[in-house]
Amino acid sequence: MRENLVENTAGKLLEYIRLKEFNMGDKLPNEYALAEELHVGRSTIREVVKVLVARNILQVRQGSGTYISEGKGIVKDPLGFSLIKNKNKMIEDLFVLRYILEPPMAALAAKNATENQISHMIRLKDAIEVSFKNNTDEHVALDIELHKTIAEASGNIALSHIVPIINESIALFNENYNVSNLKTETIELHDDLVNAIAKHDELNALDAMTVHMANNRKEFSKVIQSN
Amino acid sequence: MRENLVENTAGKLLEYIRLKEFNMGDKLPNEYALAEELHVGRSTIREVVKVLVARNILQVRQGSGTYISEGKGIVKDPLGFSLIKNKNKMIEDLFVLRYILEPPMAALAAKNATENQISHMIRLKDAIEVSFKNNTDEHVALDIELHKTIAEASGNIALSHIVPIINESIALFNENYNVSNLKTETIELHDDLVNAIAKHDELNALDAMTVHMANNRKEFSKVIQSN
Repeated sequence: MRENLVENTAGKLLEYIRLKEFNMGDKLPNEYALAEELHVGRSTIREVVKVLVARNILQVRQGSGTYISEGKGIVKDPLGFSLIKNKNKMIEDLFVLRYILEPPMAALAAKNATENQISHMIRLKDAIEVSFKNNTDEHVALDIELHKTIAEASGNIALSHIVPIINESIALFNENYNVSNLKTETIELHDDLVNAIAKHDELNALDAMTVHMANNRKEFSKVIQSN
Repeated sequence: MRENLVENTAGKLLEYIRLKEFNMGDKLPNEYALAEELHVGRSTIREVVKVLVARNILQVRQGSGTYISEGKGIVKDPLGFSLIKNKNKMIEDLFVLRYILEPPMAALAAKNATENQISHMIRLKDAIEVSFKNNTDEHVALDIELHKTIAEASGNIALSHIVPIINESIALFNENYNVSNLKTETIELHDDLVNAIAKHDELNALDAMTVHMANNRKEFSKVIQSN
């Protein structure tokens, strides 16, 4: 009973946030005002805020108030991958998913990328090359950021939400996210990929990402088999 | 500080659940035992349980104890779609994602489906046909269940987590999930699709799902434009 009230009120509050066009970082009205607006008691509002904080939709700043979270309502590990027992199987399956999603995503990015997004991709691919040459670990985070930028450049909201989660999950559960044997190939393929996107050449972007994904998957299978 | 302790302890509790191989529906040890196991106070355990309940990983049954949730750690709207303002654009983009994912998923299902999964698909497609003929709304939930069964039959853990979320999101935000003009085509295409999977015919499963997705997307575009 009580749980249903909280869940229903959470739905109403989300609707209110959407209708009032609140943005990330905006401050919500206080507890009194929200309780009045949604026709529930203040204790219900407190419960609802806790639920939406746990879902990364709201953020409470001590002594200041409740704000729309920068986390876009995406919790840590939103797809429950941390509960899966066979990690190697899961990573292999996530690679299959990347392999399916990222080539058409690269083609869409070639179609829709803005000049700013293209400049950002060039900076990221250059920084990845520097990290490889200096043997630092930065390339892992930079690679996730590059693929995230391509996902955003695709102009598809669903892809731009899902692809970073897949790649973060792979990095989270797998120390071999970027297999070191592939450094030279990765530098060349990132060049091909970003050049194709910069030229708005959809077919070459599709091809470059397909080769990139196929190489990664092949190398990952070798690593798994040798363990 | 306090928040970090809760977040770190949540991570430890997840690790503990994984290592002890707890399954859905299993009961967790009580607060005292968990506090001792994870070297934190009972009040921290209480906070951690609240966080993991909100993430649909744990479930508290009043007067009975804390259990592993049947929700597989996937919250309602895990990808934050409810915060996106342009609903039509979002649904269109989710259709693009389905269109990319579901054909290769159907091919994998044709390769890997068990006899039980195939029987379940046949029952579901027959029930969808009955719902169409009797003009009931059941076909919406049945269609999501059919595509979920195909996702599970693919044998790919990542696909089986993601595809139901995409389809539930489309149904949640769109009253046109199953466009009624497509009833006859949908019945025929479900027949083709399930038959191909039952015969373990990967190429025909890929083709049937491709046609099914292309038709759905085309029809959805028409509905959007006429609104």
